[in-house]
Amino acid sequence: MKVLVIGANGQVARHAITKLKEAGHSPIAMIRNSEQTEDLKELGTTDTVIADLESNFDHAYHRVDAVIFAAGSGGHTGADKTILVDLWGAIKAIDTAERMGVKRFVMLSSMGTVDPDKSDRIRHYLVAKKLADDHLKRSTLQYTIVRPGSLTNDPALKMVKVEEEIQVRDNTITREDVAIVLADIVDRSSTIGKTFEVLNGETPIGEALATL
Amino acid sequence: MKVLVIGANGQVARHAITKLKEAGHSPIAMIRNSEQTEDLKELGTTDTVIADLESNFDHAYHRVDAVIFAAGSGGHTGADKTILVDLWGAIKAIDTAERMGVKRFVMLSSMGTVDPDKSDRIRHYLVAKKLADDHLKRSTLQYTIVRPGSLTNDPALKMVKVEEEIQVRDNTITREDVAIVLADIVDRSSTIGKTFEVLNGETPIGEALATL
Repeated sequence: MKVLVIGANGQVARHAITKLKEAGHSPIAMIRNSEQTEDLKELGTTDTVIADLESNFDHAYHRVDAVIFAAGSGGHTGADKTILVDLWGAIKAIDTAERMGVKRFVMLSSMGTVDPDKSDRIRHYLVAKKLADDHLKRSTLQYTIVRPGSLTNDPALKMVKVEEEIQVRDNTITREDVAIVLADIVDRSSTIGKTFEVLNGETPIGEALATL
Repeated sequence: MKVLVIGANGQVARHAITKLKEAGHSPIAMIRNSEQTEDLKELGTTDTVIADLESNFDHAYHRVDAVIFAAGSGGHTGADKTILVDLWGAIKAIDTAERMGVKRFVMLSSMGTVDPDKSDRIRHYLVAKKLADDHLKRSTLQYTIVRPGSLTNDPALKMVKVEEEIQVRDNTITREDVAIVLADIVDRSSTIGKTFEVLNGETPIGEALATL
């Protein structure tokens, strides 16, 4: 499948591009400017498209089979960018998929979005992510929403715990494992219409995803 | 009517409380803490209820006939508060109205929300307001959404221009005129389900609102 990765320069997204290639897909990295092409070189030859979530980006969707939305304004910018990228950018990415006829849409969300009011520190971020997810659920797209716990940079464990809502304390998962999950579910049709949380756990990734 | 004014300490809201009284309604000022009661004293005796949009505020809705949502985080706080008050607070105020059976809901919105991408400086604010309005439109409530232009502190002119989308350059309106509009439409059933922009103009307020 041709998979447009939005926010391709993010840490999870970069792993996802590698994992998509390994799975035989053709990832297309959507990046804001040509300088970021350099940053992607370490991933080997990767198709890129230059487009900005804060402008019109219809052209990025040409001949695309699926979208993975992995953009995030990150912790180094203000909450205005949380609104404009994580929320408004996501809504526009979803609406663009509908308009351009790209049916499959995988959203990189976050644990804690089920009830943002339980969080203090990043409540505004979780509200933005929740409202983006809600918009996707109301769309006509074949969506899957992936909500990982706290992200770490450890190497993949390839073992996860996957549930609609996980009740646990140790809530971490490696970015590489999240990427494996994203690359796997793009063409796993049983995950369409599903929203799930994911942490490192005791079950091989494919087996865990098959239970959804 | 008993009208709960959310964000009662705001400048438009304070005018609205006065105008509601003048129109024979019983406004209830929802404020965050008892210190704000002092601030409302200049408006004369006003019923107040202490409740916080960032917590549960069900109790504020008891025996209320209508809600005017006039809360705003204002320019002095960060965009995280734009998410938590203007957007998330509004969504919770709408959901609470549905849950508590308060049907009538008047939203103080803003011009520019039709297409936030046309704005540079306050785009994130307009996105937040637009998404709150969209949530209200999807609700089961008897809503009216009022979108004034740039607000001034001049005395009321009592003459306005009212349209779904106004195409003009001189886009100001006094806060007092906005308040008169809010207090008027609470029980003007012809405005239910309507969204409109409002500026100072050439038509007496009642006459202009009757055209909606």
